[in-house]
This record gives sequence, C-alpha cells and structure tokens, in this order.
Amino acid sequence: MSNTETGSADDRANIGVVGLAVMGSNLARNLASREGNTVAVYNRTYARTEELVTEHPEAGFIASETIDDFVATLATPRTAIIMVQAGKGTDAVIEQLAERFEPGDIIVDGGNANFNDTIRRERELRERGLNFVGTGISGGEEGALNGPSIMPGGSPEAWTTLGPILKSIAAVAEGEPCVTHVGTDGAGHFVKMVHNGIEYADMQLIAEAYDLLRRVGGLSVEQLVDVFKDWNTGDLESYLIEISAEVLAQKDAETGQPLVDVILDEAGSKGTGVWTVQNALGLGIPVSGIGEAVFARAVSSKTAQRAAMRASVQGSTRAHPATPQVPDTFVDDVRAALYASKVVAYAQGFDLIVAGAKEYGWDIDLGALAKIWRAGCIIRARFLNRIVDAYAAEPDLETLLVDPYFADAVASGEETWRRVVGIAAAAGVPAPGFSSALSYFDSLAADRLPAALIQGQRDFFGAHTYKRVDKDGAFHTLWSGDRSEISTTPSTH
Amino acid sequence: MSNTETGSADDRANIGVVGLAVMGSNLARNLASREGNTVAVYNRTYARTEELVTEHPEAGFIASETIDDFVATLATPRTAIIMVQAGKGTDAVIEQLAERFEPGDIIVDGGNANFNDTIRRERELRERGLNFVGTGISGGEEGALNGPSIMPGGSPEAWTTLGPILKSIAAVAEGEPCVTHVGTDGAGHFVKMVHNGIEYADMQLIAEAYDLLRRVGGLSVEQLVDVFKDWNTGDLESYLIEISAEVLAQKDAETGQPLVDVILDEAGSKGTGVWTVQNALGLGIPVSGIGEAVFARAVSSKTAQRAAMRASVQGSTRAHPATPQVPDTFVDDVRAALYASKVVAYAQGFDLIVAGAKEYGWDIDLGALAKIWRAGCIIRARFLNRIVDAYAAEPDLETLLVDPYFADAVASGEETWRRVVGIAAAAGVPAPGFSSALSYFDSLAADRLPAALIQGQRDFFGAHTYKRVDKDGAFHTLWSGDRSEISTTPSTH
Repeated sequence: MSNTETGSADDRANIGVVGLAVMGSNLARNLASREGNTVAVYNRTYARTEELVTEHPEAGFIASETIDDFVATLATPRTAIIMVQAGKGTDAVIEQLAERFEPGDIIVDGGNANFNDTIRRERELRERGLNFVGTGISGGEEGALNGPSIMPGGSPEAWTTLGPILKSIAAVAEGEPCVTHVGTDGAGHFVKMVHNGIEYADMQLIAEAYDLLRRVGGLSVEQLVDVFKDWNTGDLESYLIEISAEVLAQKDAETGQPLVDVILDEAGSKGTGVWTVQNALGLGIPVSGIGEAVFARAVSSKTAQRAAMRASVQGSTRAHPATPQVPDTFVDDVRAALYASKVVAYAQGFDLIVAGAKEYGWDIDLGALAKIWRAGCIIRARFLNRIVDAYAAEPDLETLLVDPYFADAVASGEETWRRVVGIAAAAGVPAPGFSSALSYFDSLAADRLPAALIQGQRDFFGAHTYKRVDKDGAFHTLWSGDRSEISTTPSTH
Repeated sequence: MSNTETGSADDRANIGVVGLAVMGSNLARNLASREGNTVAVYNRTYARTEELVTEHPEAGFIASETIDDFVATLATPRTAIIMVQAGKGTDAVIEQLAERFEPGDIIVDGGNANFNDTIRRERELRERGLNFVGTGISGGEEGALNGPSIMPGGSPEAWTTLGPILKSIAAVAEGEPCVTHVGTDGAGHFVKMVHNGIEYADMQLIAEAYDLLRRVGGLSVEQLVDVFKDWNTGDLESYLIEISAEVLAQKDAETGQPLVDVILDEAGSKGTGVWTVQNALGLGIPVSGIGEAVFARAVSSKTAQRAAMRASVQGSTRAHPATPQVPDTFVDDVRAALYASKVVAYAQGFDLIVAGAKEYGWDIDLGALAKIWRAGCIIRARFLNRIVDAYAAEPDLETLLVDPYFADAVASGEETWRRVVGIAAAAGVPAPGFSSALSYFDSLAADRLPAALIQGQRDFFGAHTYKRVDKDGAFHTLWSGDRSEISTTPSTH
C-alpha cells in the first residue's frame, strides 16, 4: 500500500480495479471522480500503477504493489472490477482474487469475455460463496473515462452492492444512468456480444453507403463529410455516423490526401462479431446482417485472393460493370436504404437476445436494454428511443419490423431501398449488408417461400419428410417407389 | 450368432455394421453385394436385425444378438462401421466395441459426426491402440445402397485395410471409385460437413431460381419442370437440378395440385450447415453463400414472425413492389445467375477446406476431393469435373473464381447476374443467395473496399490502429488529441 498508511476501515476502498491498461485506467479514474467512491488499483506490473497514481493525484487512488495488499485495501463486501484482456489470463486473475476474498465479496469481469465462460465462472465462484458478475462495458476508452454503457449480469444480490457504484459512473441518457441489471450469470456478456454484433452490422452499412455515394454517386470525400454531418441531424443521428464524418474529414499530414484513402482497406476484428453469428446459428436466429458484416471484414483481409481476383478480372474480356444511371435523389435514396437496413440489423439483434434469454433462462427487459444503449456505447443513436418506445408499447413484439413506427419508416423508404440494391448490383459495388437486409425483409413478408421446394428435395434424397399446408403431421413421398404419399414420423436418417 | 454355426476363421466377416436403421441397412446390403465381403450385422434391437436378415437372405449376413457375439464374428483386424444417429449414442457404441476390440482393430464412424468429436475420439482410441476412422458418407439412402461418395479420415494404417472395402462399395465416376483417404483424424468428417454446407447453398440457389421464374417470370410449375430438365442437359447438370424437376413434376394425389404447393414452406435442417458456417467464422473464411442458405431456412421456420410481418405489410399503406419489366431472356438470365452464384458457393466451400486443412494439419488433395464428389453424393454434378481440372492445372489456386474456365464462365454471365439481382430486389422476391454471391464477387474484385472507413472508425472509438497503403507498421490517429498520427503497436483495448 503506497498511498494509505493507516489501513483503517474508513480509509478502505469501496471498489477496486485490477488491470490498468487504458480501459482499466480510464474506468478507475471515472470511478474516482464520482462522489462516494474510493478506488483501489492494482496492476501486475507495478510501474504502470505508479504511473497512473502519479499522473492522477486528484483521483486519490489507493495503490498496492501486491495482490494481498490490494485485497486488504478493500472494504467489505470487497468489490473488484477486473479489466484485463479477455481469455485465459482472466481465469488467473479471478483465481488470485477468489483465493483471498470471503463469502459475499464480489468479483466483476469488465472485459469482453465469452458469455459461456462467464456462466461457468459464475457457477464455480457461487459454489465457493463468492459473487461473480460478468459485465459488458461499451464506449471504448472515452466511454470508460466519461461514462460508458454498462451491461452487468450476475446475481441480484451482487447488483444490490454493485448497482449504485455502476450507476455513479455510467453514461446518462435523458436523466437515466445507462446501466441495468441485464439478467443472471452470463446475461451481461451475452448482450454485450450482441451489441458488438449490431455494431459490426451498423458499421458495414455505413461503409456501403459511403462506397456507393463515392463510387456510384461520384461524391468527393469532402462532399461525403457534409452528407454524413447532414444525416447526423436526422433519424440516422448516431455516434457511428458522427465519427464517420470525423474520419472522412481527416487529412493525412504526409500526403495531404483524405486519411481514408491512405488507410489499408483490410478490416480487423476481435471476436465478438464472430461469436454473435456463431451463437445465432446455434440458436437458429437468422442474423444475416451481422453475418454479412463479419464476412465482409474477412473478405477484405484476404490480400492474396483479392490480388489474384483483381488480376483475373482485369485480364478478362468481360464487360466491366457500367455506371448505371443515378437518380438525382441518390444521396437521399442511399440514406433510406441505410436506415431500412439498419432497422433490419437491430431487429435481428434483438431477436437473438430474445432467443438467448429463452435458452439460458434470463429475464431480459428489451426496453431497458435499448435505454442503456442510448448513451455511452458505440451504437448509441436517436434510433434507440424508437426501440424503447416499441417495446414499451408491445413488450412481446414479434419483430421490430412490425412495430408501427419502424414499419412505416421502412415502408416509406422501401422503393428507394430496392432501387439502391439494384444500382449497387449493376455498378459492381458490393452491398452485402443492404441486399441481405432487403432479402430478409422480403423473406419475412413473403406469402410463400421456396423453402417448400427445399423440403421436397430433402424428402427426395434423404426421406427427411415434410409438413403439409392443409393438415398436421409429417409426410413422405415414396420417391423410389410408386410415388404415393405416406404419413410418417421423421426418419432416423 | 444366428446364421453361422461353426465360428471358424473362414466364416468370419471382414466387415461389420452396427446400427441397422435405413442408412446402416442399406450400407450393409451394399457391402454384402460386393465380391469379397462377408458382412456381420448388429443392432441394439434384435428384431430389426432379424427383419433385415429375413428380408435379404441373398446378403448372407452374419447376424448377432449381442455385441459380444458380433465382435466374435469379425475376422482380425476387426473392422466395424457404426451407423447410428450422431451424438452421445455414438460414444456409447464406440465404447462397447473398444472394450472388446484388440490393438490394430478398426472402428469406423459413418454418421454425420462433428469433426471435433472425431478428432477427440481418434486420439482417445489411438491411445488405447485402436484405429478410429470418422468417415463422411453422402448419397442418402439410395447412395448407401447403390454407391455413396465416401470421405474417410483416420490413419494411413487403417486406410490400408479399410480402403479396399470402401472402394468396393463406393459410387464410380469415370471409372474411379468415389472414395479417397481425405486426411488424418477428423479430416473426413470435416469435408463431409463442408460438402453439406455447399449442398445447403446449392439448394438455396436452386430455390431462388425457381421462385424468381415463378413469381417474376410467371412460369407455371409445369413449365418449370421443363426448364429444370433442360438445365440438366447443360453445365448445370447435377443431381439437385434433376431431383428438383422430379419434385416439381410431382402432383399431390389428394388435391391434384403440384406437390410443391401443398408442402409447408418451412425448411428444416440437421446441423451440418450450421456447423459449416460456425467453423468458417472461427477460421475467418467468408462462406456467405452457405451462411445465407442456412439463415434462409431459419427465416422460413419463423412462423409467428412471418405471420406478423405479412399482417404488417398488408395493413400498411406501402406501395407493394411492382413486377419489373422482365426481359425475354429471363429464363436464361436466371440460369446464368444460378451458375455464377454456384461457382461462388463452391469457391467459398473449397476455401474453407483449405483453411481447415491448415488449421488441423491435414494434407487434403482438393482435386481428389472434387473427384469423389462427382458421383454418389448429393452435390454430384458435371461441374465437379471442371473443379478437378482447375486443381489439376493449379493445385494452389487462390480461389476457384480465378481458374480460367470459371472466370470465363462467370464473366460471360456476369451482366445478366447483375440484372437478375436487380430484378429480384425490385420485385420483392428474396434472393439472398444470388445477391450475396454477387457482393462477394464484387468485394474480391474491388480495387478498394470501404473497409478503410471501418478501420478509421475502429481506430477512432477503440484505438484499434490501422495499417497504411504506403508503408509498413500500425498507426493511430490521436482523435481526442491534436489528431496527429502516431506509429504504434496494437493497443490492448
């Protein structure tokens, strides 16, 4: 203990932070800046701790060089937030705390853990009498410092102690702190995962809008800055639109070019998008918008394939896609396509949360979730107020797409959405997000889907049976026999 | 032992089959019909065994009532193929055999096991001195009986014994049996998984073609039968096109309607499609065509959402999509779109196999794999000869799309492919497979992708850094500071 000498109960911290890289440091500073909090800090490398304490004397941190000292500085019930890179390291840090904590103490994991790990860790620690809370924290470094959106899982008991602390540091939207007890055990990390999946989709859609306006619409990067700024005053108002304008406005100091033109066009990813789609697949939820966004990043990173493909198409005799005739309203058309596609992406994401809650036994309030995403997090947007309203009006909404507000919003832009997808296809500008969202919309709205033919094929080659539109039961046509139909239970093939 | 009385070595079986549901029975009959094989059979419920033996005296099966007797009827090295529903039951059956088998004996799992289970089982059994071979078997009931396409993994030693047996029962394409030693441990089940993933994509694309020709082109089901029959004489010639014509030609005896119109349009699935996409996501391979196919089946099964959505769009004031002007060449246009999209789906599937081989240390001959898919299996098609040729010409092909034959084939249909995607979008007929494939093609072919903007956004909100087009290293713009650029290593956020 460096900054406390007495170690008396009054001096002890109500909250500790373990792991002082940029997210942990900023969260610790945020905590320390709020009335009522005394913050203990610990980092594996003590030099980092000293640096933080020295740079921020105003925080009044209680710094410890050893984990034993750190634990000793915490008032009971001890509450510590772990902010380390998600993965195996997290288990090691949890164990260090768990060995020293007493029944009723609370260990919080604020990293981007896989919710399955969180479920396991909560169970293991509960059996040892400890509270474990996996919590999603969104907002990046800036959010961690000034107010993130916080998505804690864990037990209601832990929430009693932790809730006021998290409320003190969360972002505020319309007077309400952006934190809610999402559900038990892994619920917080699950919804954080889906939040990130939606973020992938949103970013991909914005990227497609940019690409279309630039390559088909012929807008300059400077003009695009104005377009995005303008969009940010309307129903697309959101952090991601805002920072897109900022990024596009940035000039590269070395070349004088727009920064976006010197950035290598290979998008990275850190796993939560992949997890979102993998889990959606397992739960049978079609999150095609998130899927296409994750795949689009993967395609962009296939350097060798892209080079081979460019050489191939340039060397071929193929007619390169012509620039189609672009309507005068193209900027607004693309805006409408972006908005409608965004509604689809959010609808799919919320469907996944509903399915996850059902699968894992969480009681998740979708309206409360939309509320805490209105500020602090990466997908914060005016839009989320409409989602709050939608679930307030109908908590068991089948899909966001049938909420009257969203249904009207999509309907009003539907014709242009269709036109934009057609223009992208004609022009050879990839729009996987826009077109996938439109296909999803048209699939849900279809009176009949060609899935009937697929069922016929499956019955033909695998005797998988089919249902009929006019009566209950499973049926099989004797394709290799006299082709009569028999009533059957599913085969074991 | 019921059919053998002596139990002498000469009477013993060179191969046994465990699990006599339709796939197992048919495989056993297939084995028994080939010269040199004596087939032992065992089923948990003996009644099923008796039924099979009674119905097929020509097979000369050696039937056993108990697992002990079954094992005693096998000549060494004992070789038994397990044909039970994939899952936990498989482990139980494996254990029954493993407890009774001796070092060098061979246990074969012919079910649709998850390749991760196969890797685990192979390792566990190898440690006990036993050979374990997970093998994909495709072709459904018909294939199992008359000649499937067989994809075995496992050790080269097991292949020495098993190879001749599997060659005796496999389908034959251009004089070659459709079986090859795919690679070690789980390689066989991995490629079978991808085979099924490709099958999902192929079926979805055919379904979209059907839907477009019917709903936009205005063709009757009867006309569509002729279209599919015609397509099956050209470069789309394949089992799936052939059976599509059969299914469409089928009349429902009760109503007199085409069967496809009385089949409920909710497509089922059994897991291998989901696994394919989940694994592709984990390996960073964009299999968007398979992904959209899996999602399309999921959407079709959302009965309540579809009902809500239909009510919503019918109740709205929206302008329903107009039927766009359809060119006289529409049937051929759709054919071209289907073909190009199919090339994309196969290219993605083969990419996944390359990535799996690299990840799990398998030496997979892609040309040999294409060869064994030319007959027996569900995706068998004339097309696969072209893939064989492509890998013969260039074993390290970056993507099937740059093989000269496929590049030309796609280029010649490219303009119509674009037109069909546009028509589908305008008409409100979902074409997630066609449009996703086109987006993938355009992404790979693009000189620049808007992934650069995504990298800018990621650097802005999460300091994830970006690369530059003009020099090596990772860079970060101080967005919250003076917006100068710094060279950096990736942050730990």
